[in-house]
Amino acid sequence: MDPREREVLERIEQRRRRPRRKLLEDRVTTSHGAGGKASRDMTEALFFPALGNDLLAPLDDAAVFDAGGVRLAMSTDAYVVKPLTFPGGDIGELAVNGTVNDLAVSGARPIALSAAFVVEEGLPIEDLGRYAASMGRAAEAAGVPIATGDTKVVERGKADGLYVCTTGVGLVERELTPASIRPGDRVLVSGTIGDHGMAILVARGDLALEVDLASDTAPLYGLCRTLLTGVAGVRCLRDPTRGGLATTLVELAQSADVSIGLDERALPVRPEVAGACEILGLDALYVANEGKLVAVVDPAEADAALAALRGHPLGTDAAIIGEVTAEPPGMVLLETALGGSRVVDMLAGDPLPRIC
Amino acid sequence: MDPREREVLERIEQRRRRPRRKLLEDRVTTSHGAGGKASRDMTEALFFPALGNDLLAPLDDAAVFDAGGVRLAMSTDAYVVKPLTFPGGDIGELAVNGTVNDLAVSGARPIALSAAFVVEEGLPIEDLGRYAASMGRAAEAAGVPIATGDTKVVERGKADGLYVCTTGVGLVERELTPASIRPGDRVLVSGTIGDHGMAILVARGDLALEVDLASDTAPLYGLCRTLLTGVAGVRCLRDPTRGGLATTLVELAQSADVSIGLDERALPVRPEVAGACEILGLDALYVANEGKLVAVVDPAEADAALAALRGHPLGTDAAIIGEVTAEPPGMVLLETALGGSRVVDMLAGDPLPRIC
Repeated sequence: MDPREREVLERIEQRRRRPRRKLLEDRVTTSHGAGGKASRDMTEALFFPALGNDLLAPLDDAAVFDAGGVRLAMSTDAYVVKPLTFPGGDIGELAVNGTVNDLAVSGARPIALSAAFVVEEGLPIEDLGRYAASMGRAAEAAGVPIATGDTKVVERGKADGLYVCTTGVGLVERELTPASIRPGDRVLVSGTIGDHGMAILVARGDLALEVDLASDTAPLYGLCRTLLTGVAGVRCLRDPTRGGLATTLVELAQSADVSIGLDERALPVRPEVAGACEILGLDALYVANEGKLVAVVDPAEADAALAALRGHPLGTDAAIIGEVTAEPPGMVLLETALGGSRVVDMLAGDPLPRIC
Repeated sequence: MDPREREVLERIEQRRRRPRRKLLEDRVTTSHGAGGKASRDMTEALFFPALGNDLLAPLDDAAVFDAGGVRLAMSTDAYVVKPLTFPGGDIGELAVNGTVNDLAVSGARPIALSAAFVVEEGLPIEDLGRYAASMGRAAEAAGVPIATGDTKVVERGKADGLYVCTTGVGLVERELTPASIRPGDRVLVSGTIGDHGMAILVARGDLALEVDLASDTAPLYGLCRTLLTGVAGVRCLRDPTRGGLATTLVELAQSADVSIGLDERALPVRPEVAGACEILGLDALYVANEGKLVAVVDPAEADAALAALRGHPLGTDAAIIGEVTAEPPGMVLLETALGGSRVVDMLAGDPLPRIC
């Protein structure tokens, strides 16, 4: 381990030893499930003390551990997206891709998935069959079998038709850690941001928006593999889902104890998403993605990484969006299109509930 | 592979090639989540065609597959038990033990768990903390870390406070398959049946029953290990949860293409459970267990297996309850206390919804 990496790990260790945050709320709110600041607070104040162990501590997309001499990655997600079907996908496809992606950005090749269904009594069998078929197709596209499952049924009025929980296991092909991030590194994103969250919002139909938008849900293992085999200097990958790109980058900056400077003009955003965000007073930086990759790369290889991403069908709109600096540690700063600069924090509250 | 094993596998293969059953219902009912006949029909008619692959096909408690040269077991379960806390445990402890047990009866040592929470908005943070702490303690008792997790929040009125989905990964220490079961083998159970389901029913308080009953929820890896290391002739283990002992034995008889003869007088049932069953018109054979083991054992080692189980704190009430015969294949026959004989089928309907 080089001195910089050791120093970062030591600082992270110090931070872990600090007294835990206390939750100020008495009751769970939707913010606690939004993947932003409140989710992080709950994890630190409640789940860590209750469940804490060395595997859980790094708070990455997947846990990585040894299994009989093999390095495994494991990740789980519950899906409560509303509506169950939306432009570009449905809960079944989303549940497969989301878990596959958490493994992929951890440098692992997904080898098996499990699926647990909580079904509302009265859901048409045909609908359940359609979501299951969608899972089957997504699993096949991702090249990973759904190896085991479970079904529970709850009374009418509960569960909104269907909740799905998928868990994935993968073989780690390359260990990636935020601790390897260094000042000077470049930050890349594989395409336009905010597509999934905005597609869900429009699909709910309670906005008077008529926008032609589709979720970007896609399996990212192939894209990760293309990047990792072509470019040696990839430090770390992330999958900016709930909480959006902003939350993911703040988490990275905090984990790596660095600063990330973002160039607003470089952020790829579809005009439809930008327009809808403006009308609704939302910031695309906080809107969820389900088929996008964030990569932090050695500056000497940033162009090669960009070319590798753009050469893949899922990365045609890839862009270099920022740079890592040493100071101020743990912060993300956005250089705006107007030439100003502002601090980007994690998502606060829950502007878009039930998006995944 | 010996000729008998090959023959069984061939017959199973033939059965798999038969046209799939069709579901007669239009909509999902609670029976589809009860772990009995309707659950099996839905799995065969809906999930197999949609998700089907070689791993899913055997329908065991856990999938077993190769991961970089290591044999892994993987199992998942959603928990929707009502009430969340009951005599003998709560949803957190149940969710850990249930998944640990599915791995243990597959001959695997659990090495990592994941936990996904679907939380109802408004659940007191204190309650969530208590269930998480209970999971943490259960995981520690089972010697397996909760390596990764996820939390989603749904609106008030959904999710009854909390649903939990746990998934476990284990290292296979001994491959166990129903195909190794032979006529003459003995069937053992590690203790009294029906305790969990009846404890939940009483805890709901809508029955006028005043019975002192507790769930038997417990981690079974230690008991499995004791049995497997002490007795070479263990063919197969099962964890008779939803659907009860009856459903588990019918599944075994069908998988192994054998008949199982049960001796009603040998079945260990607590007097309180027997009494409550009689009042409610239930059969303890169909009431769920959450800390019991079914073992099919070479007849020459049945006594040794019984002694091994009884020597463990979780197996003090173990009993030899039946014997495997060749005919009629796929059936379980109960020799009643009165000297009669009746066919035992899988659980039909859902007399006890939301027990796990």
